[in-house]
Amino acid sequence: MRNYKMIVSYDGTRYKGWQRLSTGEATIQGIIEATLSAEVGYEVKIHGSGRTDGGVHAKGQVANVKISRKIEEETFLEGLNQNLPKDIRIINVSLVTNNFHSRYGAKGKHYSYTIDTGEKPNVFMRKYAYSFTDFLDLEKMQQGANVLVGTHDFEAFSDKKDDKSSIRTIYNITIKQKKNILRIDYYGNGFLNHMVRILTGTLLQVGSGQKEIGDINKALETKERIDAGYMAAAKGLCLEEVYYDSIEAAVPHLCR
Amino acid sequence: MRNYKMIVSYDGTRYKGWQRLSTGEATIQGIIEATLSAEVGYEVKIHGSGRTDGGVHAKGQVANVKISRKIEEETFLEGLNQNLPKDIRIINVSLVTNNFHSRYGAKGKHYSYTIDTGEKPNVFMRKYAYSFTDFLDLEKMQQGANVLVGTHDFEAFSDKKDDKSSIRTIYNITIKQKKNILRIDYYGNGFLNHMVRILTGTLLQVGSGQKEIGDINKALETKERIDAGYMAAAKGLCLEEVYYDSIEAAVPHLCR
Repeated sequence: MRNYKMIVSYDGTRYKGWQRLSTGEATIQGIIEATLSAEVGYEVKIHGSGRTDGGVHAKGQVANVKISRKIEEETFLEGLNQNLPKDIRIINVSLVTNNFHSRYGAKGKHYSYTIDTGEKPNVFMRKYAYSFTDFLDLEKMQQGANVLVGTHDFEAFSDKKDDKSSIRTIYNITIKQKKNILRIDYYGNGFLNHMVRILTGTLLQVGSGQKEIGDINKALETKERIDAGYMAAAKGLCLEEVYYDSIEAAVPHLCR
Repeated sequence: MRNYKMIVSYDGTRYKGWQRLSTGEATIQGIIEATLSAEVGYEVKIHGSGRTDGGVHAKGQVANVKISRKIEEETFLEGLNQNLPKDIRIINVSLVTNNFHSRYGAKGKHYSYTIDTGEKPNVFMRKYAYSFTDFLDLEKMQQGANVLVGTHDFEAFSDKKDDKSSIRTIYNITIKQKKNILRIDYYGNGFLNHMVRILTGTLLQVGSGQKEIGDINKALETKERIDAGYMAAAKGLCLEEVYYDSIEAAVPHLCR
């Protein structure tokens, strides 16, 4: 068997998320598997680094697939892109060792969240940014973000569905405004279900004065979902990159 | 009668251009007129600053409409945006004097053309950038652009359909690359049918060595369409702004 690692970019707007569904609804994993299966001639399964929700985008999702046929990396990539819909693009294919696994091997992830603060939202960002027009105190948001950075039990900031550990490390959160576009970048060793969207909703509530920074401390302590903020819309979220070596080198201004 | 000036932003992807069609195909003017007519209770016609082709976008198209009812500018705008599809947004409405006309009053226009030079085109730019992966000599392109700047007969660079003058003034053309995105900005007192797309195709041919700068001089001289370059794809083009006062102040590095 040969193990191929793919970097996948997608506009998640018209998909029910990454994970294959038995209902037949279009998902990114489902579409790639169907396309690849048709190409190699038998049914293959791919493994993503993690799920993304319906409407969430990716610039650098990673998936791997084991197949018996030997295919040139570039042929593999071009064949797939020719048959995939235009809103899913494979941007890189590489042959990796058999023990590589997209999910178990991931050392960290980088997500971005984009907010359109314009009173008249930008028509070109309508599928890629969450519109939020209340005044935002960016300094307060950054102070709130600093409370979140570090190793914590993030159960309150997730819709966890299992008994597994909800302890994660966030290496850094950067908040940058450029004209009407506010972008929050999250770098961490992993993120729970809905975590980045709930972190973003919470930071927006802190920035608009609906929550205080102390509320973040409280949520980390009580671990109760109700003490964290609301979940921001899927469309603002994008999985930027998955790290398999060290994430430290990739994180800006990392000082811990 | 009251005369309202609207600034309109649209994602032109799924429209057959600006101008209303009798065939019933969706156009931006057609949709705005239908929406506005339903609002005011009788059939109204709007006047755009000019047509844009199918698939061409706008951040700052301008249109005006005369109606008898007095409506607050903000109410006018919000009513329209509530009923328009999400890919057409009115970003400003202002009551103007009765002699204002979007087309006849326009003193200049600013268009942008976006090119994705990445070998793997960015999935999020697929509707907003033209993919061009050959090597481009940007310096040569800027030299070619400098030949085009000024007052010339641009007949060769248009698909002119009438006997009107094809003399126009281009105030400036700027070419900027940022990672894989190459952007060309055109500032002029007006542009002929398909002109910006043909100018772009020509500059791309100069940049990739398929044409020489002398070919631009020749096309300006012969005024023959065949001597100019090909027409670049609609989706890379965006009408950025229409100027009604002086365009000079708006043009970067304007030295004439």
